[in-house]
Amino acid sequence: MKKQTFVALMNDSFWRPKIDLFAAEGIAYQWRVLNDAEPGAAKSHSVRNFKIAAGLAEGEHYGKVFQDSDLAKWIEAASYSLFYHDSPQLRSRLEEVIGILEKAQQSDGYLNTYYTIKEPENRFKNIENGHELYCAGHMLEAAVAYYDATGSSRLLNILSREVDYFLSIFGKNAGQLDTYPGHEEIELALAKAFERTGDEKYLDLAEYFINSRGVVPGFLAEPGFLSRKERFRGSDYYQAHAPIREQMTAEGHAVRAMYLFSGAAEVARLKNDDSLRQALYRLWDNVTGKRMYVTGSVGSLKDGERFSLVDYDLPPDIAYAETCAAIGLAMWAYRMLKDRPEARFADIMERVLYNGVLSGVSHDGRHYFYVNPLKIKPAVAKTRPESEHVKPSRVKWFGTACCPPNVMRTVLGIGSYVYTQKDDDIYMHLYAGHSAQIMTARGELQLSVCSEMPWKGGMQMRVSGEGSGRLWLRVPDYARGFALSKNGNDENIQAVNGYVPVDIAPGDVIEAAFSMEAQFVHANPNVDEIACKAAVLRGPLVYCAEEADNFPLLSSFRADAKTHISEEKANLFGGIVRLTVQGDLYDAISWGEGELYRTGAPKRIPAQLHMIPYSLWNNRGEGEMAVWLNII
Amino acid sequence: MKKQTFVALMNDSFWRPKIDLFAAEGIAYQWRVLNDAEPGAAKSHSVRNFKIAAGLAEGEHYGKVFQDSDLAKWIEAASYSLFYHDSPQLRSRLEEVIGILEKAQQSDGYLNTYYTIKEPENRFKNIENGHELYCAGHMLEAAVAYYDATGSSRLLNILSREVDYFLSIFGKNAGQLDTYPGHEEIELALAKAFERTGDEKYLDLAEYFINSRGVVPGFLAEPGFLSRKERFRGSDYYQAHAPIREQMTAEGHAVRAMYLFSGAAEVARLKNDDSLRQALYRLWDNVTGKRMYVTGSVGSLKDGERFSLVDYDLPPDIAYAETCAAIGLAMWAYRMLKDRPEARFADIMERVLYNGVLSGVSHDGRHYFYVNPLKIKPAVAKTRPESEHVKPSRVKWFGTACCPPNVMRTVLGIGSYVYTQKDDDIYMHLYAGHSAQIMTARGELQLSVCSEMPWKGGMQMRVSGEGSGRLWLRVPDYARGFALSKNGNDENIQAVNGYVPVDIAPGDVIEAAFSMEAQFVHANPNVDEIACKAAVLRGPLVYCAEEADNFPLLSSFRADAKTHISEEKANLFGGIVRLTVQGDLYDAISWGEGELYRTGAPKRIPAQLHMIPYSLWNNRGEGEMAVWLNII
Repeated sequence: MKKQTFVALMNDSFWRPKIDLFAAEGIAYQWRVLNDAEPGAAKSHSVRNFKIAAGLAEGEHYGKVFQDSDLAKWIEAASYSLFYHDSPQLRSRLEEVIGILEKAQQSDGYLNTYYTIKEPENRFKNIENGHELYCAGHMLEAAVAYYDATGSSRLLNILSREVDYFLSIFGKNAGQLDTYPGHEEIELALAKAFERTGDEKYLDLAEYFINSRGVVPGFLAEPGFLSRKERFRGSDYYQAHAPIREQMTAEGHAVRAMYLFSGAAEVARLKNDDSLRQALYRLWDNVTGKRMYVTGSVGSLKDGERFSLVDYDLPPDIAYAETCAAIGLAMWAYRMLKDRPEARFADIMERVLYNGVLSGVSHDGRHYFYVNPLKIKPAVAKTRPESEHVKPSRVKWFGTACCPPNVMRTVLGIGSYVYTQKDDDIYMHLYAGHSAQIMTARGELQLSVCSEMPWKGGMQMRVSGEGSGRLWLRVPDYARGFALSKNGNDENIQAVNGYVPVDIAPGDVIEAAFSMEAQFVHANPNVDEIACKAAVLRGPLVYCAEEADNFPLLSSFRADAKTHISEEKANLFGGIVRLTVQGDLYDAISWGEGELYRTGAPKRIPAQLHMIPYSLWNNRGEGEMAVWLNII
Repeated sequence: MKKQTFVALMNDSFWRPKIDLFAAEGIAYQWRVLNDAEPGAAKSHSVRNFKIAAGLAEGEHYGKVFQDSDLAKWIEAASYSLFYHDSPQLRSRLEEVIGILEKAQQSDGYLNTYYTIKEPENRFKNIENGHELYCAGHMLEAAVAYYDATGSSRLLNILSREVDYFLSIFGKNAGQLDTYPGHEEIELALAKAFERTGDEKYLDLAEYFINSRGVVPGFLAEPGFLSRKERFRGSDYYQAHAPIREQMTAEGHAVRAMYLFSGAAEVARLKNDDSLRQALYRLWDNVTGKRMYVTGSVGSLKDGERFSLVDYDLPPDIAYAETCAAIGLAMWAYRMLKDRPEARFADIMERVLYNGVLSGVSHDGRHYFYVNPLKIKPAVAKTRPESEHVKPSRVKWFGTACCPPNVMRTVLGIGSYVYTQKDDDIYMHLYAGHSAQIMTARGELQLSVCSEMPWKGGMQMRVSGEGSGRLWLRVPDYARGFALSKNGNDENIQAVNGYVPVDIAPGDVIEAAFSMEAQFVHANPNVDEIACKAAVLRGPLVYCAEEADNFPLLSSFRADAKTHISEEKANLFGGIVRLTVQGDLYDAISWGEGELYRTGAPKRIPAQLHMIPYSLWNNRGEGEMAVWLNII
């Protein structure tokens, strides 16, 4: 078993403060929530469920069938935090938790509190909505993270036993359940476990689930499935409407779809399966070319938390855009990069990490959005039934609490998104400052990267350690004037699939520079609500206008897309680049009480609009917010 | 008992063809529907329900508790049609129907098929949703119409007996039900009956219902009411959250509210009740100043078919904007005019009649909208759950069929909206061509009006007959250069409350002229979805753009509000004025497959957009439609 280190440790001014906040407070905060010791947070009971299943406490199970996954994601996040802040207290808490899990695991390997405590007779009876394999998948991810952080296989051993049990239950042999999970997740977790352990059993089970999906009967033949079927929760909700290789568009529950595609990308790579790879390329094009918000969020429809039934249906105000789905897109993008380093995957991965993912958590790290709209007018959002899911402010926790620990594990694990590696070819996808150890054929290279991203383009890398390799630097889609130097000498820029190669060895100093000015971005005119509008992006950041910096009635402002967008450093949220857009207020002034419509020449007055990074919205109280601006 | 004639008979090129179509085909078509003899139309059973209740047929009641009202509105419409086309066959059919009603009426006067056949034990047990008084109200309106058209009191006698029964049931005496109808309607019908008969019993009951409303307990104290209460169907749904004199905003189910305000306006006028009048002025300002679509439609929220919970919430694409609510606003406006002739009431009445009401029926008179959006993109409307109520095409009938017979009775009865009269002061509110008899102190004047409205402003009136009076001509809010002449001599224009007076006597020829150019209209910037947009109105007509005349992706067009809107006569729908707006297509061209967002200078190409009257949309198949246009 080979130890896989946690690749990059962030040391920049953007991610590191968030990581430190989560490590110093977020882990403890969420632990209190999971133990129902945080006043004002929705009830979790997640830890107590495990104690009850372990025979260490009395009581009933509380919560959803997927309540176990909240603790799993917390273990994963806590493990990552050990890379940054090794804490004996946290280590012993993790060991204590794993001890509970050991006791909660049934003798046959099964580990699930809901079905152990509450419905033992229904184990695997509701494969599409029971979430048993989903929870196991998250626990397996936690086990891998714990192993990466501590070198301990204690949790992985629990999961190994459970996977053995799954292998006995699921399959095509007589007496087995020939089916696949209703909520994908375990596939990508199995691939992780395979990569750490080299044990083919993990990969085989992942491949079986991927290839079985959408093959009738699966769970479509389960008693009651059809009666539970509704328009937005048919087999497509589960990506089970067709085998994945025949799926032309991304359908159904967005988190499920992203996790499926992530797992499938691992199987395609590890099995070098070209038919699966082609399907993933096609699905990637559909998602990012027709079904993705400019923030990288996906899943526009609240009913079924799913992709809309048609392309280009991306309403900004009633967006679902679940935080977990954004995380899922980043996960998928990263796995596409692992298979084939093409900058288009990294462009989307970076976009969604900096925007659709980060908007899910407040600047204080303790408040969360499940739903991430691109526009809000609170008075309307709070009273219209169709925006019931759109909350005007982040909350402390949710009854369905998938997002908070998911965003925490993602931020604490952001370093795992920086690189992919193929032998001695090292692909750097994110420019944020960090340090990393990369094992090459002739030794471990240490890379130390300074960067002011996302505020200023480029980076300086100092290479030390042993060995050598070829570093491939991504040329972001927003970069202008990309320049590269090695030890002070300019390098030729010859990008392959959006990556510029440079050979590196200890002692080298690599500098990359590019400018990234704020730009207006337009959307395909098929996206009805934002036709004739523009968003403002700068580097990987999508910007938004908030009432707090401007005025109410943001919809009355029209940006002049021909003018320069000015930039300034602002002392907000620890320091950001704030943008100011020139334009006018169109017929927005001097309306009398009760004047609802009027004829005559519209009044226009010059105006400007301040904009902040989208992910930081709603950190100064409730108010209007808009990503898409009207245009003069 | 004084015979009240049907005031104006239309003879213009706009309303008269619709009237003729309804008289020649619509009455027969809806009769077939009500008898379930029209293939493809939703089941009605309305006539058969009455036959069963009358003991003339066997079977079960079918349909809603308000199914009786469909036949009532048909009787009203059929009666109006007799003014235009006296038909012995229709007269005998109406007599036959009234014969059934006589037999269906119970010995105590009660007349309702649902509670007679299906739930006799529950009579008046569900006063808020049972619709017994609502159905009786519509039948009373039908009785008045039948009396006006034929001079026969046969149906009115049935209703008189039922009202006597109601007077025994409802009231403040011991043993009576001290309450008020859940769906208002009977109040305005009672006022009509009072005006025809002079019998105070009708007015007393109307006044009792108006004044009792919202006074606790009413039906709020009924068992089960609170448990049925939901966010959008609380007491405000029934306008029962407060006594009407204390209501500050229009709340709840829009049709109910409009019918209530119509009835209240009659009581305010007939009882000269100034506190009620003041409340109605306040509610009028709220509805027309903050809660009304530019088409005159009201009730933006599908949940509860109601007014939104906040002012200025008027989304064009998910509008509810029920046809019946638009009719209700016209009814209310007319009753405000009866009380006090102020042109602002007539401006709204005309707007809603020509737009929000007429859009409810197809050009062929046989297809209907229940919901009248101001924008549609069919692919989106058909797949988003929140626009499930928005149909991309009119249908033949509805399970809840309030709108089709309602729009038919309104079109056939449009002549009753033309005038109000106070002694010898005759107020003309609508300019559409017609003839009318007006009784003055010294005889009956005959007024014969030629007009090309709504295509050309103005009219010529020839006065004949006997007597004399003062004619007050409305100066519409859209009229420019209003000019008036009598017998070829210019008259001074001195408007009072928007009406210009001129004395008339037999032999006079009155000519009014004004221009009405197409204009851009803007909305209060508080209406979020249409901030920075403009609608196009010409005279009383709201215009819309349809894909059929233009291109898909209407949202990509931007109108140049500084340019002239050109007009042309078009040979569509029997002849209309078609408008053409200049503008551009903003960044709507040359998008590649899978190109969802792009940076760089937007492409703009000059373009023009053809527009037709809003009420005529969706007569050429399914396609995009938009009232509000983006603006350069």
